[in-house]
Amino acid sequence: MTYKVRDIGLADQGKLKIEWAESRMPVLMHLREEFKKTQPLAGQRVAGCLHVTKETAPLIRTLVAAGAQVSWSGCNPLSTQDDISAALAADGIPIYAWKGMNVEEFYWAIDETLKMVPTLTLDDGADLIFSVHSRHKELCSRILGGTEETTTGVHRLRAMARDGALRYPVMAVNDAETKWDFDNVYGTGQSSIDGILRTTNILMAGKVLVVAGYGHCGRGCAMRGRGLGARVIVTEISPLQALKAMLDGFQVMKMDEAAALGDIFITATGMKDVIVDRHFAAMKDGAVVCNTGHYDCEINIPQLKSMSVSSRELRPGNEEFRLEGGRRVYLLVNGRLVNLAGAEGHPSEVMDMSFANQSLALTRLARLAGTLEPKVYELPKEQDLELAGLKLRTMGVAIDELTEDQIKYMDDYSAGT
Amino acid sequence: MTYKVRDIGLADQGKLKIEWAESRMPVLMHLREEFKKTQPLAGQRVAGCLHVTKETAPLIRTLVAAGAQVSWSGCNPLSTQDDISAALAADGIPIYAWKGMNVEEFYWAIDETLKMVPTLTLDDGADLIFSVHSRHKELCSRILGGTEETTTGVHRLRAMARDGALRYPVMAVNDAETKWDFDNVYGTGQSSIDGILRTTNILMAGKVLVVAGYGHCGRGCAMRGRGLGARVIVTEISPLQALKAMLDGFQVMKMDEAAALGDIFITATGMKDVIVDRHFAAMKDGAVVCNTGHYDCEINIPQLKSMSVSSRELRPGNEEFRLEGGRRVYLLVNGRLVNLAGAEGHPSEVMDMSFANQSLALTRLARLAGTLEPKVYELPKEQDLELAGLKLRTMGVAIDELTEDQIKYMDDYSAGT
Amino acid sequence: MTYKVRDIGLADQGKLKIEWAESRMPVLMHLREEFKKTQPLAGQRVAGCLHVTKETAPLIRTLVAAGAQVSWSGCNPLSTQDDISAALAADGIPIYAWKGMNVEEFYWAIDETLKMVPTLTLDDGADLIFSVHSRHKELCSRILGGTEETTTGVHRLRAMARDGALRYPVMAVNDAETKWDFDNVYGTGQSSIDGILRTTNILMAGKVLVVAGYGHCGRGCAMRGRGLGARVIVTEISPLQALKAMLDGFQVMKMDEAAALGDIFITATGMKDVIVDRHFAAMKDGAVVCNTGHYDCEINIPQLKSMSVSSRELRPGNEEFRLEGGRRVYLLVNGRLVNLAGAEGHPSEVMDMSFANQSLALTRLARLAGTLEPKVYELPKEQDLELAGLKLRTMGVAIDELTEDQIKYMDDYSAGT
Amino acid sequence: MTYKVRDIGLADQGKLKIEWAESRMPVLMHLREEFKKTQPLAGQRVAGCLHVTKETAPLIRTLVAAGAQVSWSGCNPLSTQDDISAALAADGIPIYAWKGMNVEEFYWAIDETLKMVPTLTLDDGADLIFSVHSRHKELCSRILGGTEETTTGVHRLRAMARDGALRYPVMAVNDAETKWDFDNVYGTGQSSIDGILRTTNILMAGKVLVVAGYGHCGRGCAMRGRGLGARVIVTEISPLQALKAMLDGFQVMKMDEAAALGDIFITATGMKDVIVDRHFAAMKDGAVVCNTGHYDCEINIPQLKSMSVSSRELRPGNEEFRLEGGRRVYLLVNGRLVNLAGAEGHPSEVMDMSFANQSLALTRLARLAGTLEPKVYELPKEQDLELAGLKLRTMGVAIDELTEDQIKYMDDYSAGT
Repeated sequence: MTYKVRDIGLADQGKLKIEWAESRMPVLMHLREEFKKTQPLAGQRVAGCLHVTKETAPLIRTLVAAGAQVSWSGCNPLSTQDDISAALAADGIPIYAWKGMNVEEFYWAIDETLKMVPTLTLDDGADLIFSVHSRHKELCSRILGGTEETTTGVHRLRAMARDGALRYPVMAVNDAETKWDFDNVYGTGQSSIDGILRTTNILMAGKVLVVAGYGHCGRGCAMRGRGLGARVIVTEISPLQALKAMLDGFQVMKMDEAAALGDIFITATGMKDVIVDRHFAAMKDGAVVCNTGHYDCEINIPQLKSMSVSSRELRPGNEEFRLEGGRRVYLLVNGRLVNLAGAEGHPSEVMDMSFANQSLALTRLARLAGTLEPKVYELPKEQDLELAGLKLRTMGVAIDELTEDQIKYMDDYSAGT
Repeated sequence: MTYKVRDIGLADQGKLKIEWAESRMPVLMHLREEFKKTQPLAGQRVAGCLHVTKETAPLIRTLVAAGAQVSWSGCNPLSTQDDISAALAADGIPIYAWKGMNVEEFYWAIDETLKMVPTLTLDDGADLIFSVHSRHKELCSRILGGTEETTTGVHRLRAMARDGALRYPVMAVNDAETKWDFDNVYGTGQSSIDGILRTTNILMAGKVLVVAGYGHCGRGCAMRGRGLGARVIVTEISPLQALKAMLDGFQVMKMDEAAALGDIFITATGMKDVIVDRHFAAMKDGAVVCNTGHYDCEINIPQLKSMSVSSRELRPGNEEFRLEGGRRVYLLVNGRLVNLAGAEGHPSEVMDMSFANQSLALTRLARLAGTLEPKVYELPKEQDLELAGLKLRTMGVAIDELTEDQIKYMDDYSAGT
Repeated sequence: MTYKVRDIGLADQGKLKIEWAESRMPVLMHLREEFKKTQPLAGQRVAGCLHVTKETAPLIRTLVAAGAQVSWSGCNPLSTQDDISAALAADGIPIYAWKGMNVEEFYWAIDETLKMVPTLTLDDGADLIFSVHSRHKELCSRILGGTEETTTGVHRLRAMARDGALRYPVMAVNDAETKWDFDNVYGTGQSSIDGILRTTNILMAGKVLVVAGYGHCGRGCAMRGRGLGARVIVTEISPLQALKAMLDGFQVMKMDEAAALGDIFITATGMKDVIVDRHFAAMKDGAVVCNTGHYDCEINIPQLKSMSVSSRELRPGNEEFRLEGGRRVYLLVNGRLVNLAGAEGHPSEVMDMSFANQSLALTRLARLAGTLEPKVYELPKEQDLELAGLKLRTMGVAIDELTEDQIKYMDDYSAGT
Repeated sequence: MTYKVRDIGLADQGKLKIEWAESRMPVLMHLREEFKKTQPLAGQRVAGCLHVTKETAPLIRTLVAAGAQVSWSGCNPLSTQDDISAALAADGIPIYAWKGMNVEEFYWAIDETLKMVPTLTLDDGADLIFSVHSRHKELCSRILGGTEETTTGVHRLRAMARDGALRYPVMAVNDAETKWDFDNVYGTGQSSIDGILRTTNILMAGKVLVVAGYGHCGRGCAMRGRGLGARVIVTEISPLQALKAMLDGFQVMKMDEAAALGDIFITATGMKDVIVDRHFAAMKDGAVVCNTGHYDCEINIPQLKSMSVSSRELRPGNEEFRLEGGRRVYLLVNGRLVNLAGAEGHPSEVMDMSFANQSLALTRLARLAGTLEPKVYELPKEQDLELAGLKLRTMGVAIDELTEDQIKYMDDYSAGT
C-alpha cells in the first residue's frame, strides 16, 4: 500500500465529484489534451503538497497525463476532502491526506511524498519546500525547481531568497494575474462566505461583517459580504489599502474599535494575532469569528480558550466558547481556512485558471532545467493572456481585435491635441 | 409510539442545532417568555404542516409554552431536517416527518396530525387545510381558524374563499409586511443561492443566472445572485414586475430566449411549466436548473426525463441528465425547494419575524374565537410595527421619534408653498 | 399679456429641450396621439400647479391635444426652468412661473391660473387645491375633480378628507404603482444625487451620506448614493422602514448620532425640523446639507442662519455658512428640492409614466363627471398594467404570457404536495 | 498682457470656486504649507499644459508657493473653465486657455507658455512635451525633466523612449498607485457619468450602457453606470481585462454586436476608431454616444457627420445627428472628454492625491537635477504610502499598526503547517 487516506471505500463517490469538477475546468482539460501528445513532464517526479479537493484531482491527473510521476500530501490539517483522497489513491497516486490529521501526521505525510525523490515540487504555503530545505536538504540538488500557489507561500519564499537560503528556483504561480486577480478575489470571496453559511446558516443581510485585511482575498470577502447584504467594516495596516477600502464604500477603523461592532469577523491578512484577547473581550454576545488566511494563527485561539469557561461544538465546524460573564463567541473550523474546512474551497471554474498556471509553471521548470538560479520567478505575461483567451473562448465570449491601422496608431506618439 | 421520524438517535444533535437557532431568534424568544405567563393558547390543539427545520422547532416550543398541544408534519417531501424531527419527537411532540417521504406518506403524515382533533391549523402551502376541507370535512366545525405562511398558500386560499369553499377563517401570515418583505426577499434570496452552492459549488461570478419571476422571492434571488457576481436575466408575466426588474438593472426577456443564455436557472413563480421541454432543448451544455417556488411543478421534470438518454446523481442533490446529442443538464434536489432541500432553508434571523407573526396570528385566532367569518384575513399593521420595533431593539438599534410639534405638523394640511 | 415668465426670449431654447424630453417620453406621446382622436378633455379647463420642467411641457401639450384649455403655475419657488416657461408662454399657454419667485408671487401665480374658472385641477403638493378651498371656495362647485402628484400632497389631502374639508374628488396619481414605485425611487434617487453633484462636484466615493427617511424617495437616494461609492446612514421614525434599511445593508441610527458622522445630508421625509440647531452644532467642518422633500422646512434654515457668523454663495446653489468656532456648513439651493432646484428634476423617462398617469387620471375625472364623492381615489390597477406594458414595448422588451393551461392552474386550488 | 482668457471679469467667481476646491484638497494644502518653508522649486520655471479647472488652480498656487515661476495652457480645446482661467490670470499667472479654442490656438497657447524657457514641464496627454521635442528642440537641454498625468501620455512617452526620441527624464505621475488606482477609477467613473447627466439628464436605470475599454477609467465608468441602475456591456481587446469584466458581472462582447444593443456608449480606450460608421449604422434610434478617453478620435466623428442628413445642438453639449432613414444619434461635447467638457472633471477630493503626486514629482526632478537619464520613471512606492496616510488622516480615519512581534513574524519563514 502506497497511500494513507481516511476510507478507500469513498473512492467512487470521489470519482463522481472529480468528474463534476472536470466538467467545469475546460482550460485545464484543454492543456491535458495537449500534454498527452507533447509529454512535457516525461521522466519528471512531482511531489505536491496542496489542499486535496475535487479541483486538485484534475490537476494531478493532468500532471500524470503529461508524463509525470506524482506523489501528494494535503497542505492543511482540515482541508482534505476524504472522498477525493480515496479516489486518487484508488487510481494509484501515492497520496497521504485525510481530514483531521494532526501536526505530526502532517509532516509525516510530506516526508512520505518525498520518498519518490522528486525532481519538481509543488507547494501551497511552502511547507513542502521548507521541509526539503530543513529536514531533507540532500534532495535539493536533485530538484529542478518548485512552484508556489499562495500569497503567504510566495512571501515566505521571498524571505528565504533574501536570506540566501533558497536552494532551487521557484515559480510564483500566485503572482500570475490570471491567478491572484481571480482565484484570490472571486474564489476566496465566494468560498469564504460559503464556509460561513454552511457552518452557521446565519443571515448576512443586516449583519456587521468585519474583514481584517483588504488585499485580494479580503477585498473578495468584503465584496461578497456586501453582496449578501452585510455592512462591511475593514481593518488594515496599509494606508493605501485602507484608502481603497474607503473609496469602495467600506468603513475603515482599527480592530480595537471594530471588535465591539462586528457580528461576524473574518481574517484575511497572512499575519498572526489579528484578533486577540482584548478583541474577544469587547465582542458582542453571539459574535462569529473565522479565518480565511493560510495559517490558523490569525485568530489567537489559545487566548480565546483561556478566556472561556466552557466550549462545545453546536454544529459541525461551529464551536461555542462561553466567556466569563456569559457572552458567547463562535469560532469556525478551529480558525482554519473557513472556505476549505467549512465548505469545499474555491469553485472549480476559478481553480481552472490557477491550476492551468500550475501545470504550465511545472512544464516551464522542466523545459528550463538547469538554466535558472535559485530565485523566485514570475510567470511570463503572455501566459496570462493566453490562459485568459482560452478561458473566454470556453465561456463562448468573443472580443474585439485591433485593426492594422489601430496597431499603428498605438505605436505612434506624434498624434495629439 | 406517537411519532414517525428517520432516526430518533439524532435527537441530541438536533437539540444543539435548535439551541443555535434560538440564540438567533430573539423576538420569538421574547414572545415565548410573555406567553409563558399569559397562556394565550391554553386549551388549544394546533396541527401544523410546515417545513421541519431548526427554526420551526423554536416555533413549536413557543406554541407549547403558550399552552397549546401541538402535532406536526412536514410540508414538503425533501425539506425535513431529520435531526430536528428527532429532537421534537424526543421532546414528546407527535411529529410525522422525515426527509424523502413519498406522496402517500406525505398525506398519511398529515392525517396522523389531525387525529388530535385540532382547534387551530397552521399551514405552509395549504396542504393541511386542503386535507381538512377534502378528506376530513367533519373537523371544520371544530376548528377556530388557521394560518398560512406562503404566497402560494394564500393564493390557494383566496381562490377557495372566492369559490365559497373555505369553511373557517384564515390569517394570511404571509401578507404581514414583517413577513413577506423580509422572509420572502432576504430569506429566500440568500438561502436559494446557498442551496445552489451546496449542491454544486459553482462560481457565481461571471455566470448568467436566469430568475423566473420577479415577485419578492425572485427579487431576492436576483439581488443575491448579482451580489455574488452573476449577470442576472429575469423572466416575468407581469409588465409591472418586468419593468421593475429592468429599472433595477436586470435584463428581461422571454424564457424562450433566456433558455439558450443561462448557466443557472431558478424558478420562483408559483406557476407550473415555467421551464419545459423546448427550454431544455435550447440550453447550453452544463446548465444547472433549480426551483425555489413552493411546488415541484415549475420545472417540468417528466419532460426532462423523457428527453434524457441517461441520468445519475453526481453529488448529493445534483442529478445529471444527458440529453440526446450529449448535452448535459443538472437538476437540483428533484426540482424541490432548493433552499430547503439543498441547504437549510431561511436563516433563523428572518424566520424569527415570520414565526413571531405565526405565533401572534394563532393567539389572535384563539382570542377572536367564533367572531370571524370564513375568510382570509390580514394581520393588523400595528403588529408589524411592534415586531419590527422589537427586532430593532434586539439588534441594538435606536431610531428617531417625532416631537409633539412634528406630530402636529403631520396632521396639519394648511402649511404649503 | 396672459403670462408671466422670466424672459420670453428663451422660448426657442426651451422648445429644443422639450423636443429632447418628448423623444424620451414614448408612453405619453402614445397617449397624445390617441387623445387627438378621442378628445377626452374637450370642453375642460385644467388649472395646473406643478414644477415647470421640460417634462411638464409635454404633459401640458398632451392635455391641450386632448381638447383642454390649460393654465399653469409652478409649484415651487426655485424649480421653474425659465426657458421652458418661455416656450409654453410663446405657445399661448397662460403660464405664471419663473425661477426665484417669492411666496407672495407664488400665490399670485396660482390665483392668476384660477381666473379661467377651471373644471379640473392638477396639483403637486396640494397648494393649488388648498388655495381653491381657502381663498377661492366659490370655484369648488364648478370643479369636477383634481389630481395630486406627490406623497406629501396625498397625505395633505387625506388629512383634509378625514376632516370633511375636501370639497371635490381627487385622484391620488402618486399612489399609482407605475408612479410611486418608479418616479419616487429611480427618479428621485438619480436626480437628487445629480443635484448634489451639480452644486458641489464632490466625490461621493468614500463619503458618509446621511439619508433622513427610508420611504420611496429616501430609498432611491440611499441606493444611488451607495451606487456612487458613498457609505450610507439612514435615519427613520418607522421601525418597519428602519428594519428594511438595515437588511438592505445600510446603517441606521438617530439623527443626533448621525449628525457628527455625515459628510453629506439629504432629507426625504415630508416632515419638518429633521435637521435642527443641535445637529448643525455637531456637524463636521465642510458638511453639505440638502433636502429632496416637497417643502423647505425639513432643514431648519432659520436656526442655521441664527447660528452663523457669516454666509456667502460659493457656487450657484451652494451657500457656505460659517458657524461660531469656524466650522463651515454648506446648504444647497436654500433647502428647496435639490433635484429640481439644483439639477433638472426627474429624467424624462420616468416622468413619462407619471404624466401618463396624470393624463389618464384627468380623463377619468372628466368621464366620471358628477359620479364621484369628494374623497381621495386610487387609480385602477389595470391602468398600471397597461402603462407598464406600453413602456416595456417602447423599450423593445417582450415578456412571457401564460398558456391556457397555466391560467387554469392559477385558479385551481386543489393541486398540492 | 501676459495671458489670454475668455473674460477676465469672471475672476471673482473663479476665485470662489477655487476656494471651494481647496477646502476639499487637504493633502495638497498640507504640502503647500510645507513647501512655503522649504521652497523646493525655488528658481524653477514650470510650464504646464493641463486642464484648467478649479482643482488645477490649487496645484498652480502650490507650485508658486514652492518657489516656482509658472506658465500654463489648457490641454484640451473644450475642458477649460473660463472663470478659473480668469482667476489665475488675475493672480498674475501667464495663462493661455479658454473653452472652445481651436487646434491652431491650442498650439499657439503651448508656444506662449514656452517663452518663459522652462526648467520643468508638466503634461496631461504629452502635447506640451511633444511640442518641445518637435517645434522647440532647443529647449530640451535647459529642461531638467517633466511629469505626465495620464495613461495616454505615459503610453506616448514610453513609445518615444523606446524609439530613443525622448530628450529628458519624465516622471510617470499617472503610474503612482495613489493616482491611477483612485483618480482613474473613482474620479473618471463619477465625472463621466456626471457629464452624461448634465448634457442629457437621461435616466440611467434600465438603460444599456456600453463601455468600451475595461482599464481603470472604463472600470470606473462601468461601476458607476451600474451604480445608477444601468445594465453594462463591456467591449475589450485584452482577454485578461475582458475576463475581469465578466467576473465583475458585466456582459462582454464585440462592439459590432453591442452597437445594436446600447442606449448609451462611452469610450475609454486610448485608441482611435472604437466606434465607426458600421456601428452608427446599427444603433437604436436615440442612442447617446460619448468619449472619456484623452483624445477625440475614439469616436469617428467625420464618419458620423458624413452619414447624417442633418444635425443640430438640442442642449448644450448634446448634438443630434439624423441619419438616413430617420434614426437619431446624439453625440456629446463633440466627442471630447465628457467629464471635463460636459461636467467639471474629476472631483477635488481625488485630484487632491493626483496633484499632490504632481507636486512631489516636480520637486523630485528639481532635487535630482542632472542625475537622471532621459527615460520614463516611476514614483517611489513610499510616496504612495505617505500620501495615502496623509489622506486618511484628513478623513479622520485611523488604522492598525503591526506590533514588534508581528513584524518579526512577517520576516520569519520557518513557521508553517
